[in-house]
Amino acid sequence: MHGLDRILEAALAEDIHTGDITTLAVVPGKRDAGAILKAKESMVLAGIDVAARVFRLLDPAIRFTPRFSDGARLQSGDILAELQGDAAFLLQGERVSLNLLQRMCGVATLTSLYVEAVAGTRARIVDTRKTTPGLRVLEKYAVRVGGGINHRTGLYDGVLIKENHIAAAGGIAEAVRRARAYIPHTMKIEVETETLGEVGEALAAGADIIMLDNMDLAAMRQAVATIGGRALVEASGGVSLDTVRAIAETGVDIISVGALTHSARAMDISMLLEGY
Amino acid sequence: MHGLDRILEAALAEDIHTGDITTLAVVPGKRDAGAILKAKESMVLAGIDVAARVFRLLDPAIRFTPRFSDGARLQSGDILAELQGDAAFLLQGERVSLNLLQRMCGVATLTSLYVEAVAGTRARIVDTRKTTPGLRVLEKYAVRVGGGINHRTGLYDGVLIKENHIAAAGGIAEAVRRARAYIPHTMKIEVETETLGEVGEALAAGADIIMLDNMDLAAMRQAVATIGGRALVEASGGVSLDTVRAIAETGVDIISVGALTHSARAMDISMLLEGY
Amino acid sequence: MHGLDRILEAALAEDIHTGDITTLAVVPGKRDAGAILKAKESMVLAGIDVAARVFRLLDPAIRFTPRFSDGARLQSGDILAELQGDAAFLLQGERVSLNLLQRMCGVATLTSLYVEAVAGTRARIVDTRKTTPGLRVLEKYAVRVGGGINHRTGLYDGVLIKENHIAAAGGIAEAVRRARAYIPHTMKIEVETETLGEVGEALAAGADIIMLDNMDLAAMRQAVATIGGRALVEASGGVSLDTVRAIAETGVDIISVGALTHSARAMDISMLLEGY
Amino acid sequence: MHGLDRILEAALAEDIHTGDITTLAVVPGKRDAGAILKAKESMVLAGIDVAARVFRLLDPAIRFTPRFSDGARLQSGDILAELQGDAAFLLQGERVSLNLLQRMCGVATLTSLYVEAVAGTRARIVDTRKTTPGLRVLEKYAVRVGGGINHRTGLYDGVLIKENHIAAAGGIAEAVRRARAYIPHTMKIEVETETLGEVGEALAAGADIIMLDNMDLAAMRQAVATIGGRALVEASGGVSLDTVRAIAETGVDIISVGALTHSARAMDISMLLEGY
Amino acid sequence: MHGLDRILEAALAEDIHTGDITTLAVVPGKRDAGAILKAKESMVLAGIDVAARVFRLLDPAIRFTPRFSDGARLQSGDILAELQGDAAFLLQGERVSLNLLQRMCGVATLTSLYVEAVAGTRARIVDTRKTTPGLRVLEKYAVRVGGGINHRTGLYDGVLIKENHIAAAGGIAEAVRRARAYIPHTMKIEVETETLGEVGEALAAGADIIMLDNMDLAAMRQAVATIGGRALVEASGGVSLDTVRAIAETGVDIISVGALTHSARAMDISMLLEGY
Amino acid sequence: MHGLDRILEAALAEDIHTGDITTLAVVPGKRDAGAILKAKESMVLAGIDVAARVFRLLDPAIRFTPRFSDGARLQSGDILAELQGDAAFLLQGERVSLNLLQRMCGVATLTSLYVEAVAGTRARIVDTRKTTPGLRVLEKYAVRVGGGINHRTGLYDGVLIKENHIAAAGGIAEAVRRARAYIPHTMKIEVETETLGEVGEALAAGADIIMLDNMDLAAMRQAVATIGGRALVEASGGVSLDTVRAIAETGVDIISVGALTHSARAMDISMLLEGY
Repeated sequence: MHGLDRILEAALAEDIHTGDITTLAVVPGKRDAGAILKAKESMVLAGIDVAARVFRLLDPAIRFTPRFSDGARLQSGDILAELQGDAAFLLQGERVSLNLLQRMCGVATLTSLYVEAVAGTRARIVDTRKTTPGLRVLEKYAVRVGGGINHRTGLYDGVLIKENHIAAAGGIAEAVRRARAYIPHTMKIEVETETLGEVGEALAAGADIIMLDNMDLAAMRQAVATIGGRALVEASGGVSLDTVRAIAETGVDIISVGALTHSARAMDISMLLEGY
Repeated sequence: MHGLDRILEAALAEDIHTGDITTLAVVPGKRDAGAILKAKESMVLAGIDVAARVFRLLDPAIRFTPRFSDGARLQSGDILAELQGDAAFLLQGERVSLNLLQRMCGVATLTSLYVEAVAGTRARIVDTRKTTPGLRVLEKYAVRVGGGINHRTGLYDGVLIKENHIAAAGGIAEAVRRARAYIPHTMKIEVETETLGEVGEALAAGADIIMLDNMDLAAMRQAVATIGGRALVEASGGVSLDTVRAIAETGVDIISVGALTHSARAMDISMLLEGY
Repeated sequence: MHGLDRILEAALAEDIHTGDITTLAVVPGKRDAGAILKAKESMVLAGIDVAARVFRLLDPAIRFTPRFSDGARLQSGDILAELQGDAAFLLQGERVSLNLLQRMCGVATLTSLYVEAVAGTRARIVDTRKTTPGLRVLEKYAVRVGGGINHRTGLYDGVLIKENHIAAAGGIAEAVRRARAYIPHTMKIEVETETLGEVGEALAAGADIIMLDNMDLAAMRQAVATIGGRALVEASGGVSLDTVRAIAETGVDIISVGALTHSARAMDISMLLEGY
Repeated sequence: MHGLDRILEAALAEDIHTGDITTLAVVPGKRDAGAILKAKESMVLAGIDVAARVFRLLDPAIRFTPRFSDGARLQSGDILAELQGDAAFLLQGERVSLNLLQRMCGVATLTSLYVEAVAGTRARIVDTRKTTPGLRVLEKYAVRVGGGINHRTGLYDGVLIKENHIAAAGGIAEAVRRARAYIPHTMKIEVETETLGEVGEALAAGADIIMLDNMDLAAMRQAVATIGGRALVEASGGVSLDTVRAIAETGVDIISVGALTHSARAMDISMLLEGY
Repeated sequence: MHGLDRILEAALAEDIHTGDITTLAVVPGKRDAGAILKAKESMVLAGIDVAARVFRLLDPAIRFTPRFSDGARLQSGDILAELQGDAAFLLQGERVSLNLLQRMCGVATLTSLYVEAVAGTRARIVDTRKTTPGLRVLEKYAVRVGGGINHRTGLYDGVLIKENHIAAAGGIAEAVRRARAYIPHTMKIEVETETLGEVGEALAAGADIIMLDNMDLAAMRQAVATIGGRALVEASGGVSLDTVRAIAETGVDIISVGALTHSARAMDISMLLEGY
Repeated sequence: MHGLDRILEAALAEDIHTGDITTLAVVPGKRDAGAILKAKESMVLAGIDVAARVFRLLDPAIRFTPRFSDGARLQSGDILAELQGDAAFLLQGERVSLNLLQRMCGVATLTSLYVEAVAGTRARIVDTRKTTPGLRVLEKYAVRVGGGINHRTGLYDGVLIKENHIAAAGGIAEAVRRARAYIPHTMKIEVETETLGEVGEALAAGADIIMLDNMDLAAMRQAVATIGGRALVEASGGVSLDTVRAIAETGVDIISVGALTHSARAMDISMLLEGY
């Protein structure tokens, strides 16, 4: 992941700043130790290279040996990785690497639940921009690990014409026309709709993707039928594990879920030092 | 909050990068609009100035008028703030400000539940280093807004002697002695203990704070009695809303709760644009 | 343009560093002066707000009054803008603002020549990644001002499957399949082809855009016919003002031109100080 | 070149940002490959170490073997360098390294033409501050490789008293006096003159360097005679390959040429991947 | 020291910027050389790893062999370290490493004089915030090397309630109460007092540390007696090598000395190149 | 001073980091106050705008009214400036502004003593590169305020050929020749000499400045006579207030003094808050 080091160095500086005063005071000098990272519940692994990189940045001499790769389904008790190196650096990297790893595994695991819930349908699960500020690239990676795909990364690499844009432009047709004239030919145009009337307008305007925002199942089914494959159909709004299957069965192509990054619980992982 | 702007500018750059291409394409030029931030559930407000600052950084001409201050207890439907200004900047700031505000309100609200659960006891609720990398200062602020207090900010501004330090130093007494000789006289020394025997050693060594790590209630009660006010007593490990009251009633001074920052759910807040 | 200030501040630091020693030595203190920016040849204006921002960053008190907006077609002798303020800051900003403005006008002007050359055809002129390191966002903006559109900004916001990718994946079909499974649904997939056989494969694989790399006019015409509107067609390679019209007349949708940013001559603009 | 890495890392971030999505999608994992950099026209080589450093920053394991050193005169078809390493990183570094290398070779080549044009005279070719913002240090290096020398790097490391300074100070004599009293004794003082009268004043004031700004050949010859070796003489303004020889033959010591960095055409160099 | 590299890279950039022009001009290319760092007077060594790191950052191939460790008491003529490597980098690192090393040795040496002056008393010597902007972490480290301990690092990691805070809060008791309610339980509270009456108030309010600001010896003795071990006692204000012993003999626990970092003279150390 | 803000923001971040915890805890909210900066001894003022800028960066609403300008000779008791604004920001800026101001006044005052000591001779006092890492631009400014002039700023903007360069080049003549061929024509060439023989060589080689390194007075006098105005003469090494007059009387043009920045004592200045 290009740019990862900047995130990790900021996280380490936030935690260590002028130094780990306890270790400096109590255990000065070098002292070799081993450690393991251990899953305390079942989960989808995501971020093992991120965890490794945290320690590498602290001390290139630390050996970090992963036992699983991202995407692996872990059981409680599984050893994710073994570490060997200077105990002071193992202790300094513990919290930052776990804070990131637990969050990434949480996102991947939650994503995998949504993906499983729609298995057998044509629907794909995608994320949103409701991510943790500063960590978006890591969370979107974890979504992919969990079997989802990504929506646009930010406001700069995708076009999503919303209600306010439409009102300001004077209608869907004009909004789409303006976008087509301006954007790279490599980008698709997505239009947010709230009614079947708007769906029709967006289709007529040549939208590549039509978002059905907070529609009920019947409306979604009808929209899918109306669109008839001439645009991708994205369902959005109020999606939960309870509702996602029914939504998928309406025939939509894409279901975007804010909860993937917004409400993912951190997975329980701990680091155990040995032979200090 | 000193340093806030750097966090916010990074978050805005993450989302906007080279530009909000939809707005640039569809709604070029200036266009005045109003907006409101609205609570969709009850919560403790935290971060209203952070949200305001996001818009201020985008465009100093935006008027952000808060209707509540941090610490206020909001009901669903309450208007947190009114905004007026160039619609393009309102749209660009929406996601970043909400992502931060919803998280901070989540932390403050969850903290307030723990604080209420121990009302009437001597125990105070404190946070941990299990925070979101890059956002620690915001999350620790939200803990204070919710009625908690903060543990050390990082490894650099507090001493916590753990099992590994003790083993390496050759015992609690020696570890505390080394720390006292090294650290600023303005810092206290905390020692993590797992048995009543270790509690006794820490007390004899002159620890200022004794952490009871994953002890059961009976052990905690006995530890409190043994210590007898000669050191602060901190309970840690496996604390939940279900167990926190009983822990508080053992007489400990401090209960540290990773969940405050680790598992806080984002509160539901939305921004509505008007008169675009 | 989000991120503009960082570019400008780096450019100013590069030129001024510890201070404009001549002015500090010879003309210390404040001294009000006026200045004008004047076109010395005909051109398409691009970057007037960038030039203004350079002076604003040096001293917010400088008044920069543009007389034309980006996109205007200037004649030799036209006054682009008037400035009024502290002479020391006018002098310090002169070189940096002109270096940027002259380059941006050069790109816009050259682009406009290509756009005019294909007038009446369906072809649109797009840029490439052959831009000045550090100034890509400015140069791509100038291309739009000149009437072109942008290709992807970088490797991160568009998919272009080249010969090497195809070889490594084992064929066009597999390469497109992998891309579709991975990328955001908001992005199109472009495939580079060198033969009509490859054009057929790309079409069958469902490519959204098919690049015809260095094909002759006959091959291009045949490719356009084969594709029949089922994908966008982009001509690329060896495009010059002499050849672009003929290429456009083959019926391609897009013609990408490295020269727009790679070989644009700086336009001749000067700044004249008055009443020092 | 101290500070080079910062320029290169910014250029790589500009192009790659969150990742090379095509390669990530289509060719995940490591894959060893070879590549060559090849000249497509004759040129003076400049920047081979810069190109190497781009790849080194992406992946220290890439082997970059230059076949020529800076200053070499290449023919079309010459192989500049061979590369071996992970294909993903070769692809990611290609555009940035070429964008820089082609520009630097362009500057060196153009400079060498000016240097050759004045061969046998006492005149030396120097550059100006009309450089690409952010790349000045690279372009000034390329000028030296091409046989030129550098003028001051920026406003901070040389004194050039221009018309406006003179007017503000109340005359050349006073301007020079103020400069001499202020600047490091290690710097020379240059005065810009437009008439022979000003040349005389500058000489009398003790200027170390006298710039003849836009004078005709006769005036230049007379100025050289007047100065008689008591100051360096720099010709400036409107210098082209057509006029530079005649200017040199007036006897000036220095000829500054904005075109060296301002109008240099990028040389044609390509990278070819093999055995992907 | 976490964060050291950023300080050193800024210092190197300040001195070298675009390059060591003398060496580039006169001695281009690699040339192996040796060098030594030599003490020209007696001193306490502090910063040997900092000096080594300067050269390591310039060129990882330089071998820096320390002959002494921090804390060593050097005599004039002692060789601190031997260096071997590319002469250009030895020359470029000389000034920055010496500027830092001489300053750090100065602080450590001066601190050691104060520590010796109070030998046999209970008093410990501590530093203040009167440090060199940008170098605080290095100077505070040197204080520890010299046998002192550190006061708080900055405004963020320690509480010092001064006269103005007390006035604003309405009294010492209220100020201490507010602080206790707000700060981490890991921090002590220090109160500045100027009279014995204030000492009594601070003690009653539960201050952990009581600073005696500019009191005479008699008042200090009486304050120590009054406090009777119930709080740490810190003497502050107007401490010099002439007065520190008498102050220590009043029985205070801590004596803070601005001069440690504020007035430390740079120690005389030189670098000698050999075999260039 | 271009670049000043970066220095000041780093200094403020170093001191304040996550916040002034005492003020946040004890005196939350806004509270208007006044303050003065007062000289406690006589000195040359330098840095009053730097001090003002510190407060401006913390809070643009603070009014900072200087009563003296840089270069003024202050007596003990003089009020340098009056401040009015939010007390929290006055307290937060106090230490950083004083740390800088006291140091800058120290440098200017010490410089003025050297300048006065050589009054009536032709000698000018210049500084060296023995400055505080990170603060060179401020210290060199203070030297100018004190009546001195600056030597080169760093290794990049001046040429000083030392013993090692000479040895590597094979002699002074060759070293000077190489430098002249490489450097900007706006820079002079300085050669360090230790014997009269070397002085002769440097003169013959065309050095612009000849440094007499650690020569005795007789040798300096003879060197001055030999050079006879054909180059600037700089005395260097072991200069003190005791010896500087005699050195000046040898007729040298320039005397460089490391002590100006290396050993300057901080001047005693305090800030007094009123009406808190």
